[in-house]
Amino acid sequence: MKKIVLTACAALFATVSFAQQALWGGAQIVSPQVNADNTVTFRYKDAKARRVQVTGEFLPEVMIEIPNFGKMATAGSADLVEKDGVWEFTTPEPLASDYYTYSFIVDGQRTTDPANVYINRDVATVTNYFIVKGAEDSKGNLYSVNKVPHGTVRKMWYYSPELGTSRRLTVYTPAGYETSGKKYPVFYLLHGAGGDEEAWYTQGRSTQILDNLIAQGKAEPMILVMTNGNAWQTAAPGESAEGLKQPSMGMGQGNDRPQVKEAAFELHFPDVINFIQKNFRTYTDKKHRAIAGLSMGSFHSENISKYYPNMFGYVGLFSGASVGGGLGNQNPTSDVYTDFDGKMATQFSAKNKPSLYMICCGKTDFVKQGVDQLRSYMDQHNYPYEYVETEGGHIWKNWRYYLSIFAPRLFK
Amino acid sequence: MKKIVLTACAALFATVSFAQQALWGGAQIVSPQVNADNTVTFRYKDAKARRVQVTGEFLPEVMIEIPNFGKMATAGSADLVEKDGVWEFTTPEPLASDYYTYSFIVDGQRTTDPANVYINRDVATVTNYFIVKGAEDSKGNLYSVNKVPHGTVRKMWYYSPELGTSRRLTVYTPAGYETSGKKYPVFYLLHGAGGDEEAWYTQGRSTQILDNLIAQGKAEPMILVMTNGNAWQTAAPGESAEGLKQPSMGMGQGNDRPQVKEAAFELHFPDVINFIQKNFRTYTDKKHRAIAGLSMGSFHSENISKYYPNMFGYVGLFSGASVGGGLGNQNPTSDVYTDFDGKMATQFSAKNKPSLYMICCGKTDFVKQGVDQLRSYMDQHNYPYEYVETEGGHIWKNWRYYLSIFAPRLFK
Repeated sequence: MKKIVLTACAALFATVSFAQQALWGGAQIVSPQVNADNTVTFRYKDAKARRVQVTGEFLPEVMIEIPNFGKMATAGSADLVEKDGVWEFTTPEPLASDYYTYSFIVDGQRTTDPANVYINRDVATVTNYFIVKGAEDSKGNLYSVNKVPHGTVRKMWYYSPELGTSRRLTVYTPAGYETSGKKYPVFYLLHGAGGDEEAWYTQGRSTQILDNLIAQGKAEPMILVMTNGNAWQTAAPGESAEGLKQPSMGMGQGNDRPQVKEAAFELHFPDVINFIQKNFRTYTDKKHRAIAGLSMGSFHSENISKYYPNMFGYVGLFSGASVGGGLGNQNPTSDVYTDFDGKMATQFSAKNKPSLYMICCGKTDFVKQGVDQLRSYMDQHNYPYEYVETEGGHIWKNWRYYLSIFAPRLFK
Repeated sequence: MKKIVLTACAALFATVSFAQQALWGGAQIVSPQVNADNTVTFRYKDAKARRVQVTGEFLPEVMIEIPNFGKMATAGSADLVEKDGVWEFTTPEPLASDYYTYSFIVDGQRTTDPANVYINRDVATVTNYFIVKGAEDSKGNLYSVNKVPHGTVRKMWYYSPELGTSRRLTVYTPAGYETSGKKYPVFYLLHGAGGDEEAWYTQGRSTQILDNLIAQGKAEPMILVMTNGNAWQTAAPGESAEGLKQPSMGMGQGNDRPQVKEAAFELHFPDVINFIQKNFRTYTDKKHRAIAGLSMGSFHSENISKYYPNMFGYVGLFSGASVGGGLGNQNPTSDVYTDFDGKMATQFSAKNKPSLYMICCGKTDFVKQGVDQLRSYMDQHNYPYEYVETEGGHIWKNWRYYLSIFAPRLFK
C-alpha cells in the first residue's frame, strides 16, 4: 500500500496541471521591486520587444489634449532599457511612502506587468499597483495590510423600494463586531463617476485604512458602507445579471442602461440606511452617521446631506461640489437639486448644522473652480466648514488621503 | 449662481481625470464576443504586432514536456488574423455553455486581453475569462450572476489557537440569512495547491453556483465556508501582512514561509468549525456538516474526515486521493496520516459512516491512478461511496462541475 501511496501523493503534490501552467507561465523576474532606498525597479522580460515604457502617476506629468475638453495633466512615462532580453527601469529618486499604480507600454501597446499579479480595475482599464511602505503613520503603511485586528468585509444585496430593485453594496464592520454585542456608528462612503461598490474597497484601500486607524486608536470603531451610486445599475460590472459586459462611464452616449429619474440615487438613500439599521447593530441618530464621497460621490454627499438635513452629523466632500444644479442636467427639476439657497440655509441652521463639514480638493484639480465657488458661497453665508487643500488633481492618491484624515474626525 | 453651477457640474460630470484616462486608454473593440451561435470572437488591436495568438482550454489540447515530471496535456492555441490593425479569431465551432479562461500571446509574450476587464489570478498568472450562457440548468447559467436572491459573501478573520495566529476565510451565507432567524447547515469547501481562501470564490464561481442552485430549489440553503488550506500562510497573497509578494506554490523550494508541523491544516480544522459555530447561526451536528475539496483540498478533506470521523456527514473528494501518506512527505509521522487502514475502518463503521462519500475525477487527470487505487481499496472493504467520472483532467472546469453536482446532494 505504501508504494502506491507515494506515487499518487507525489503527483498530487508536486504539481497541479493548471496551477502549474499558471506558475510556470509567469515571468521569472521580480517586478516591481521596491529597493532599500525606496527607489523602485520595473522589469519586463521580452527579447523581441522594440520599446518598453512604464507609465504611472509617480513619473513627471505631461499635458495631453482631450477632445471636447481641453488640455489636461496626465501621468508621464519612462523608457526601460534592455539587457539580455530583460528590460529595466529604476526611478531616479526614491518614491514617497504611498500606493501607486502603473502600466507598461510595449511597442506602443498599454499592458499589464506579467510579473505582478496585483491589479485594480478603473472603469475599463486594469492597471498594476504596488505600495512603498514607511513608518506607522505613513501613507504606505496606512494603505497596507498589517498585523492588526481585521474587520469583516461583506458583499451583500439590499432591496430598494424607491428604485424597485435589489442592489449590491460593500459593508465593512470593525474587528470585534461579531461578538462585541455593541452598537456602532455608520459612515457611508460614496464613489465617483465610473466607479461602483467595489471602488473604495479596491482602489481606495478603505478597509485597510480603517483597520489601521482603528488599531492605532486614531479612529473610532465604525461600520463603513460603500454603496453603488449609479442608480441605473444594480451592481459593479461582472456582479450583476447584466453579465460580463465591458464597463463604461455609464451615463455617456450609446449605453443601453435603463433611464432612471433625476436624483434617483440621492432620493433612494434612506433605503440604504434602513437596510443597514435593520441588518447591523448601529446607532440610529445623526451624530452617529457620516457621509462622504469623491467627485460624483462628493456631489451626491452634498445633495443627500442637504436634502435630508437632519440625517448626517458629518459630511465630507472630496474633489467635487455642485453649487446647485443637477448632475449632467443643465435644467434640473428634481426637488433634490432645486432651491439650493433654501436647502443650504436649512442644513446650516442652528438646529441642523453638522458637527463637521469638510471640503477637500487638489490644487490642480479641474473641479477646483467649483469647489472655490462653494467655499465663497459658504463664507458669504457664514456656514462653517473645514477646508483641506493638497497638491495634485483629481486622483485616487488624494482620495485615499482625504479618507485617512476624515475618518479620524468622526463620532468624537 | 446658475451659470457658475453649470461649469463645475459639467466638468465634474463630463469626466474624471484618471477614470477618463482609464476609459479612453482602453481598446475600442469588443473582445471576447460571444456570438448568437455560441462561437466566440477574440480581437486584439495592434497594427504593429507580428503575431497574435489566443490560448485557452476550449482549443484542442497539445502535449508539452514538463521538466522532472513528464508529458502533460495543456491548452492549445490559435492564430488571430490581422486586418486594418485589428487581429481577430473566431472559434470554428460553437462553445458549450461554460466558464472559460484564455490569454493572448503577442509576439511570443503571454498577456491579458486589454479589451476585457474580467480577470482571475491562478497562483502567479492572471488570465481573462468569459461565460457562454445557456438554458437554466446549463453550466454557463449556473456560473453566472442571475436575477435571483443573492447571499452575502464575507471576507473575515478567525483566530486559530492550534496555529497560534489569525487567518482569513471566505464565508457565504444564503439569501435571507440576516433576517430569517433560522439555523443553517455548513459546507466547508477547500482549495488546491497554489490556491487560497479566494480560489473557490473567484475561479470556482462557488457563490454564483450556490445562489443559483438554492434559487432553483435544487440545493438546501446552506453556509459555505472557504478556508485557506496553507497552514504556513495567514491569508491570500496581497491580503496578509506579508505585503504584495509574488505568489508561489508555497511549499516548493526557495520560499521563506515559516515551517509548520506536519498535517497542521488538518489538525487545526476544529478551530475553523468552532469559529463558524460561534459567529453564525448553524446546526452543530454531523448530519448538517459537509466537507469537500479539490486536489490538495481533496487530500485534506479525506484526511480531516477520517481523523475526525464523527464530524462530517458528507464528504467530497474532487480530483485527489492520498490512499494514506503525508502530503509531500514520504515518511509521515503525524497521527493524522498514519494507520490509514484503522482510520478508514473507523470512519466507515456502522456508527460513523457518512451519508455521502463522493469521489470525482477526470478521465485524463494525472491523479486518476491514485483515485482508482482508493476506489479499489474501498470496494475491497465494502466502504460505500459514489463515483463520478468526467472527461478532461485536473482543471477548474471539472471542479466547478463537481461542486454543482455535490451541493444538491447535501443535507437532504
